[in-house]
Parts: sequence; structure tokens; C-alpha cells
Amino acid sequence: MEYQFLSKIKSPADVKKLDEKDLPVLAEEIRDQMIRTVSESGGHLSSNLGVVELTIALHRVFRSPEDKIVWDVGHQCYAHKMLTGRFDQFNTLRAPGGISGFTRRYESEHDIFSGGHSSVALSAAYGIAEANKLKKNKNYTIAVVGDGAFTGGMVYEALNNAGHSGTGTKLIVILNDNEMSISRNVGALAKYFATIRANPRYFRLKARTEDVLNHIPLIGRRLAKILFRLKTSLKNRIYKSTMFEDMGFRYIGPINGHSIPNLTDALRGAVEANYPVLLHINTVKGKGYELAEQNPDRFHGISAFNIETGEKKLSAKGFSDAFGSFLCAAAEKDKRICAVTAAMALGTGLEEFGKTFPQRFFDVGIAEQHAVTFAAGLARGGMLPVVAVYSTFLQRADDQIIHDCAMQQLKIVFAVDRAGFVGDDGESHHGLFDPGYLNSIPDISVFAPATFRELEHCFYEALYKTEGSTAVRYPRGVEPELPEEYVFTGEDWQCTGAPSDIAIVAYGRCYGEALKARRILRQEGLNVMVVKLTRIKPVPKEAVKCAMQAKKIWFFEEAQRYGGIGETFADKLFQYGYRGEYTNTGVQGQFAAQNTVQGLMALYGLDAAGMVKAIKENEKQ
Amino acid sequence: MEYQFLSKIKSPADVKKLDEKDLPVLAEEIRDQMIRTVSESGGHLSSNLGVVELTIALHRVFRSPEDKIVWDVGHQCYAHKMLTGRFDQFNTLRAPGGISGFTRRYESEHDIFSGGHSSVALSAAYGIAEANKLKKNKNYTIAVVGDGAFTGGMVYEALNNAGHSGTGTKLIVILNDNEMSISRNVGALAKYFATIRANPRYFRLKARTEDVLNHIPLIGRRLAKILFRLKTSLKNRIYKSTMFEDMGFRYIGPINGHSIPNLTDALRGAVEANYPVLLHINTVKGKGYELAEQNPDRFHGISAFNIETGEKKLSAKGFSDAFGSFLCAAAEKDKRICAVTAAMALGTGLEEFGKTFPQRFFDVGIAEQHAVTFAAGLARGGMLPVVAVYSTFLQRADDQIIHDCAMQQLKIVFAVDRAGFVGDDGESHHGLFDPGYLNSIPDISVFAPATFRELEHCFYEALYKTEGSTAVRYPRGVEPELPEEYVFTGEDWQCTGAPSDIAIVAYGRCYGEALKARRILRQEGLNVMVVKLTRIKPVPKEAVKCAMQAKKIWFFEEAQRYGGIGETFADKLFQYGYRGEYTNTGVQGQFAAQNTVQGLMALYGLDAAGMVKAIKENEKQ
Repeated sequence: MEYQFLSKIKSPADVKKLDEKDLPVLAEEIRDQMIRTVSESGGHLSSNLGVVELTIALHRVFRSPEDKIVWDVGHQCYAHKMLTGRFDQFNTLRAPGGISGFTRRYESEHDIFSGGHSSVALSAAYGIAEANKLKKNKNYTIAVVGDGAFTGGMVYEALNNAGHSGTGTKLIVILNDNEMSISRNVGALAKYFATIRANPRYFRLKARTEDVLNHIPLIGRRLAKILFRLKTSLKNRIYKSTMFEDMGFRYIGPINGHSIPNLTDALRGAVEANYPVLLHINTVKGKGYELAEQNPDRFHGISAFNIETGEKKLSAKGFSDAFGSFLCAAAEKDKRICAVTAAMALGTGLEEFGKTFPQRFFDVGIAEQHAVTFAAGLARGGMLPVVAVYSTFLQRADDQIIHDCAMQQLKIVFAVDRAGFVGDDGESHHGLFDPGYLNSIPDISVFAPATFRELEHCFYEALYKTEGSTAVRYPRGVEPELPEEYVFTGEDWQCTGAPSDIAIVAYGRCYGEALKARRILRQEGLNVMVVKLTRIKPVPKEAVKCAMQAKKIWFFEEAQRYGGIGETFADKLFQYGYRGEYTNTGVQGQFAAQNTVQGLMALYGLDAAGMVKAIKENEKQ
Repeated sequence: MEYQFLSKIKSPADVKKLDEKDLPVLAEEIRDQMIRTVSESGGHLSSNLGVVELTIALHRVFRSPEDKIVWDVGHQCYAHKMLTGRFDQFNTLRAPGGISGFTRRYESEHDIFSGGHSSVALSAAYGIAEANKLKKNKNYTIAVVGDGAFTGGMVYEALNNAGHSGTGTKLIVILNDNEMSISRNVGALAKYFATIRANPRYFRLKARTEDVLNHIPLIGRRLAKILFRLKTSLKNRIYKSTMFEDMGFRYIGPINGHSIPNLTDALRGAVEANYPVLLHINTVKGKGYELAEQNPDRFHGISAFNIETGEKKLSAKGFSDAFGSFLCAAAEKDKRICAVTAAMALGTGLEEFGKTFPQRFFDVGIAEQHAVTFAAGLARGGMLPVVAVYSTFLQRADDQIIHDCAMQQLKIVFAVDRAGFVGDDGESHHGLFDPGYLNSIPDISVFAPATFRELEHCFYEALYKTEGSTAVRYPRGVEPELPEEYVFTGEDWQCTGAPSDIAIVAYGRCYGEALKARRILRQEGLNVMVVKLTRIKPVPKEAVKCAMQAKKIWFFEEAQRYGGIGETFADKLFQYGYRGEYTNTGVQGQFAAQNTVQGLMALYGLDAAGMVKAIKENEKQ
């Protein structure tokens, strides 16, 4: 599309050149481009539509990249990308080799910190602000953090630390309050923010008074200081302070987050403070696209859709749905079953559970650490908790799994969704680490089902047949079509094919690829047996022994190679006296980029073609 | 010792039988026993001395284990142990096979949740409280949390979640405010607590009014309800609410934490609320032992000491000190170097750094996640941050290392202290997981120095010769005495001995044991080469090739075997075509218990004797 203003913007300097009256048109153009692009590429829509005016205001008031804007999560950086020289490439959003749906340092000097995970921006921004202080650099650092992210504990760790730093810390935290985390906002904090929103005049007054006084040079500033001191001493009686003030920040807000003049005024006021400031703005998630405003959840992270109707173009049943259905059925029979999620009820397939069993459903906010230890508490109290978290976010609770689950010898079931490649969300979101960190933890079992039926079976095993805690990991997306030689056995492992000189060992999504590879190789005269692991921790001894019948064993794993199951398998081969060849394939020592899942499987040699190629080349030698 | 009251207490029921006037004597006896025992066994003294009255009050008011007391960290549970049937065994504190210095589920039904790591108690307690609700069980759950732990983000995740639950949640959080986390309290929160402490009358008034009204049955309670509603609506004008009230809790406090009558009254008041309550108590760390009151830091976690003088009985220079000295010297030359610690300045050897370079020293509170991402921010701002954290606590920042350090391709140096066995703190504190979870992370190097000189060398490499982030892991305690065949080379790996049929591969503390084993075996006519890894990630290819000259390779690792470096080594052996024997030894699939470090090395076959035994037995076959 060719736009009147947007098409001409090559850098933030161009934003500053625009006439103030043209900015609403620019905002409209940005929204139009966002909706068009996301309707084709998929991506985060609601959050991006909500911060268009904020992004314009930030680039009007501050000089990026000298002033550093850190977007928390980064799922609201589309306008920022368009205004920082990436409008031309915006149609490659989330495509292989295209621009990322999150901030990425390698993409632009204006992307200060690569995003993906929640609640980290303030920590990073405060670090930058302290570095600036040490270097006597006067530039500002701005962290933009959604209200949902405020349910994550790291924000408080950072507030506590940064709030202590006081005068001279050029740090602004923008609380982007859209009354909505990824799904509905949860917890007491949401109520608290609502209280503040309900009394805007009261809170805004303070900011405005100080702000006005600050704008009268010298005398005003001194007066403001005196007033501030007075205020501090009388604080308890006259003013109600916000939690943020209790934590050492100056509070400004709430401000209308869709008024560019209000925003620029407030940002300029914040700069005057020369002190850590929390600027509270109200925005509407999905702003400007009616369907998204009405149903911001559905348009949070969305695949391609029809702009007119909002209908998704593709919507097949995935592993998450299969998990959700299973858990509902299980919870109907077993009153001890509880479901815990960290703001991902929709993504993990728990919507139905939440509606059917509201008392046993706990959405704890974007708080994976608490989610895990809270579940441990539920287990300690006699419940049977199932914690559904994406693999990439479960990383955050490694210590809690070790210390509060495994060490307590409590039974908690982890539903590790989005295990393996996730595709277009890219390096921050692939679930490639869970086999590695779960591998080291004692007294935990890990399963990797390859089909929906296996998924149900694994969860049943986890709930009723396994001691201690268990993780069941499964990929994003739909069930693979497996060839007819696959038979559901309900065993921890299984072998396809007669003992052969070549064995492929695989689990999860790689298993279907292994069966395909076996077919292809057989057509070319090579006999291959496929050993499939359904339980990957502990690795079943018999599976190792079975593979050892081959002279050459090939292990394929959709996970980080170092520390992964393939290395455990190697160690076990030595332990049982294997003297043949062993080749282990996984993602080795790098972050996998954004790409289609199939593209990534191919890139890392984990699809059938890659397996065939590797094995044939080896045979030729 | 035989005590008038303490010696007769076999269970909490006996505490309830005592006359109120005898309780101060009981408190004195408990303190006497604590000081005597810890002066011999070492342990946590200051925190335990601080909660003697609280513990008595809790066991007077509540019925443990039906009512569940969850001690955060658990480093304040000594009085609790003495009052719950473990007085007789208390002299075995922290000894091999003796009672633990933390709460341990397997030790007593009164230890509800095993402790060790900070800021988790509220999450666990709230889980138990919700389970009770679901089971219509009317018992109470009490979490005791120190003010230091409130610098950890998990507490806010839990407050936000629990504060939302409202009426019928039988949950009491006791904020044990001793104005002191492990070292001095840090951050804005400490100031905020001080503000509350400075205005006790104001805050206490509210509690007392409600409390008095609650004690007039029926009418009083209705009145209290009406008043509460009135209060809520007028809250902003009449009452200043605390942060805890903003997060949905009823607030009571501050209460004198050394007055048993005040405490029991307050606890009974909290029970009346039938609502999540935060009870704020003030205690003095080290209470009752003058030397500890004066210097609570030194008596936080302490080794054996002289009761009269407070002098430590042993105090040799350890790896932490060597690190601290190195970093001071480096920071003198390089102004970019910053040190970051999570409330462990003393333990990690950074006290001197903090004094010498206060502007470049950041103690962020018990907040490992923030510590890591904040350091990433410092690096992004051009500094060279070194984050010093115990191995067991760094587990908490796995995701931040992945997402905010490695993925950003920033240079952060991790000083991973207490790597390997820590001895008497037991299963919650051993540093056995870091090789596993660091192993999977791309673009990170890991070093494991065996001596002080190597430690300095590794940090120098990490700071100036290595791309991306680096972890240097080293054990608790003193430098090992290495035999004369050890020569410092400054290489990533080294080999001792001519190519032999048997190779031992080891790193860190196991290396010294390997050299000793080599000597012993040589005396018995067996030639052994020792391959030592100083860099364990990536494993140097040449080290693998060197070991491959042997027909039998033995790998020894003071870490979890699964996911560890020994498995990576196995995988590499296959990769390079090794066809000999390989035996990997580590801690396999269990949490190591409390024991001396030497005892644990022996138990897991990682000391020289164990190595010799394994190799000789194998040779006999």
C-alpha cells in the first residue's frame, strides 16, 4: 500500500517533521497496514493496535536510538517497526527471512532489546539507565510494559531495585493499561488498577500540579521540590499514594493513551522529573478494528484471518485442543484434578475446562514460577494439579520444578505445550530447551506423545500410573498423519520393522518423519528399523537394547542437542556396551530463527528428507 | 542439656499445656539450645533467634499439622523443630544423617513443605489453602516470610493471585520484618516497610478496631462488616492503605514480634477475618545473643564459632574470596566492570568490591531473575557486568540467561559459586544442576577452574577473550592441594601422563581426586592418563581426541549425570568414532542428601578412592 504519510517515513526523524494535525491520519495509516498484514501473516493484533498513538508520541518526544525504548514482550512493536525504517519490509512480517513479530536487536538499532518473554523490560531498561549514569550519558531509557506483565514477579523485583535509585535515574516506565492481559486480567492487581482508573482526576491532579509547577523555570522547580517534601511528610494524610510511589517511583496518570497531545505532554513531564517515573496510560486493546475491540482475546495472537468477518482462515484441531478435551473428561471423573495456567487458558486449550470447572481452574497471571509452586501447594493439599504452560515459558520455572515439585516428591503434571519448533514466532518462542533442563531433574518422568491418542494415554499414565511429577510435551499444531505401519501400543517405546543394520531413534514430531524416511529408504533397498520413544525420561532401557541390534544408530531430536535426550542415549549405549556407530541430530548450539515448522525441520535435518539424505550419504562412504 | 520446659516438649500439644507465664522461660531455653548447637554444627543463627516467640505463639494458637505452617526458606525453623518432637535429635543438626537445617517433609509431619529457596512459601501455602477450600476443610494455612524474601518477585505473583480469592480463604501471611534480609535490606521496599514501622499507631489502630469489634459476637461482626464496607468506599480519603491491602489482603500490624501475648492476640484476630490476612510483625534478628544482635549478617549462615567471642573456628580463604580479590583488581583497571549480586554480597566474596566501587556494585535483593536481566541491561549500556550467584539460586534465572543474555548476544559473566556439593545445607542447596541447564543454552561458554590461579585465568578469559556470555563455576570451600604433576597451563584442557589404556576425564573438584587416583593406581601398576577440562562448554575437541587414545575412558562429574557434560562427552566420542569403553559417573537421578562434601564425593564414587575402586574392579573382569 501507498500511504500519504506512512510511506514516506524512513526514520523517527521523519515522524518529528510531521505537523501535529496530521498525526491522527498517520495513526490510521499504521492501523490499516497492521490489519492488512496480520490478516495474511498472522501475528499479534490487539496489542499492536492499542499502542499506535503511544508509539508516535514516543518517537516525537524521544530520540531513538540514543534514547532507548524497551518494549516488554515486544508483541506491540509493529508501529515502532514501521516508524523506524521498516515500513517497506513490513509485508514480510513473520515470514521465513522476513521481519520478526518481536523486537530483534539484529534487525534494527532501534530494537534495543530482543523481546518475546514477559515482564523483563523494566529490568533491562533499568540496567541501561544505570549504565548511562555511570557513563554520564544523559539519554533516557523507556520501558513499555502492559498491565498483564505486571502479574509477573520480575516487574516487582525491578521496581524495588530501580525505585531505590532516586534522582538522576533517567528511567520512565510506561504502564500500558488495557484492562486485559493475554486473556482477561487476573488477580488483585487488576482490581487495584481499576480503582486508579476510576479516580483519574484524583491521581492526575498530582501530576498536573507538579508538572505545571515544573514548567515555571527555577522558582517553579524549587517550589515543586518544597511541595514534594511537604507532600512526602503529609503523604499519609493528604494524598493516597499508589503502590508505585510506595516503591519509590514518581507516578503520573492515568493518561488517555489514544490522545497524542496528552501523551506527549505526559512524556515531557516525566522527563522533567529526572527521577524514575511510572507513567500510567489507558489504552483500548484492538483499538480501531471493531472486531478486535469487541474480542481482543481472539485477536491477541492470531493466524491469518478474513478482515471483514474476523474468521480464521485455518482452524484444525491441535494438540492443545486434544489436551483440553482429555482434561475435561478426566476432571469429570476425578474431583481432585485442578488446572493451572499462567495467562494462557486459550492457548493451552483450557477455555472449556475453565467454564466447566471454575472452582478447579486457576489462571494465576503471567506468573510461571508461582503457577508451579502454587500447583505444588495444591498437590500438598491433596489435589491433582495439571499445569499447562508453553515449553518456552516453563523455562522460567526450572527452579520451582526442581525445588518445589521434584524435591518435595509431590505429584504435579506438566502439560508442556508448544514443545519443539513453533514456527513464525521465532527464536524467543521455540520450545527447544525443556528436554535439556528437565533431563537433569531427579524423580521426574517426561513423555513425548506423537498422536492425540498417545497424548491421552501419556496424561493418563502421568495422572495414575507414574510416581512423582511428570511432564508431557507435545508440539504446536495438528496431529501428523502416520503411515499404516504405526500401531498404537500404549507402551513407553515401540519398534517398527525387523532388526536391521540401521536404526532410527526418534520421539514426538520426529517420529512421523522417521516412519516416512523408513518407507523412502526401503524403496531404495535400505532396511531400517525405527525405535520410537514415548517416554523420554528415563529413557527405557529396552529401547536402547533394541536399537543396539543395529550397526548404525541415528537419533533425531526436535530440541537442543547439548544436554538433550540424544546425549543421554549415547551415554546409555556406552553403558550397555554398544560398539557401533551413533549419530545424534538436534539443534546444535544456536537459536533457531523464525521460519515455518516444516522449514525448520528441514533446516536442521529433522524431516524425512533430511534423515534419508544423511543415512544415504553415510551408506555411500 | 536438660531444660525445665523444653526437654519435656514432645509435640505442639505440650506447648499449649504450658502456663502463659512460663513461656518466656521456654523461649530462653530454646535460644540457649540454638546457640549451643549452632556454635558447634554451624547453621543459620540470626534468623532462628528472631522467631522464637513467633514459633511459640503459632503452636499455641494453631493445631499443627492440621493447620499448616509453611516456613519460607526454612532457615528459621529450629524452634519449630524443637517444639515438634525433635528436641532430642537437635544436636545432630546438619550432621550426616542428622536433622536438616531446613524444613524437610520426610523428617516430620509438621514440616509441611521442604525449604531452602526464598520467596516460595506464600505460593505453596495459597495452593494448600485453595485445596482446603475445595475439600471444605476449615484448617488454616500460615506462611512465614521474611522481609528479605519480599524482594523476590514470586511473593508478588502469589499476593496478586491469593489477594483475589477473598472471603473463605483461610490463609495468613506473616511478614517477619527484621529490617534485614540476608545482608542489609535493599531496594525501595525496605524504605516502605520502614515507613509503616514508623507509624505503628496509625496502622495498628485499624486492626485493633476491627479486632475489638470482632470480639463482640454477632452484632460486633456485623458492625465490623458495615464499617469495613464504609472503609473501603472511603478508603482513599480516610485511611492510607498499605500495598498489601491494595493487593487484596487484610493488613494487621505492625506487631511486636517478641511479645507472645501480642502475637497470639494478633493471630487470633487474623483467624477471625476468614479472609487472606497479612500480619506484619517486627522482630530483631539475632535476638537474645548480643553478638548476633550487633552483627546479624555474620551470624546469618555461620560455621562453628566460639560462643564467648563469636570468632569462627575455621576461616581459610575460599574460592569466593579468590573471586572477590580478582574482581576488585580487574575493576580497578577496567571501569566498565560492574558486580551484581542477589543479596549474597558476603557469601560470594563481594563485600570488598561493594566498599571499593559502590557505584558499580548492585545488590538487587533476593531477585535472581532481575539480577540477570538487569545485568543484561548494563551490558546493553556498555558495561561489563559480573553476576555472582550460587549455583542453586541461579537455577531461578535459567530463562533469563537464555532469553535476556544468550539470545541478545550480550557479554555477561556469571560467577557461579557453590557449584557442586555444598555439604551440610543438603539437597536444596547443592549446585548440581548448572552444567545441565547451561549445557543446552547456545552461545554460552562454561569454565570450571580447579585452583585459584585457574579461577583468575578463567575470569580473565571470560571478560576479555570469550565472545558472548560466560559462566565460571567453582566449588564452595578452599583450594585443593594438587600433587606436583599438576602444572598451570592456562589452556582450555590439559593432559597429565603419557597416552595410556586408561583415561580419567574430570573437571573442577573431581580433577584433584583424579590426580590422586592416578598416583594410587600407578603404585598398583596401572598407568592412567588424566584429561582435565577447564572449559566444559563447549567441550574442547582436542580433549576428546586425547582421551580417545585410551581403550577405556572414565568420566567423573560433580553434577547431575543426566543432561550433564559427561553425556555430551559420550556423544562426542561417538561423533569422533571412538569404539572403546566409556563409563560416566555423576549424581544419577536423585537429590544428594546433607553430608560433608568429602562424604558426598565418596558416596557418589567421585573421590580418589571411588575412582580407584571402580577402575580396579573393571580391570579385574
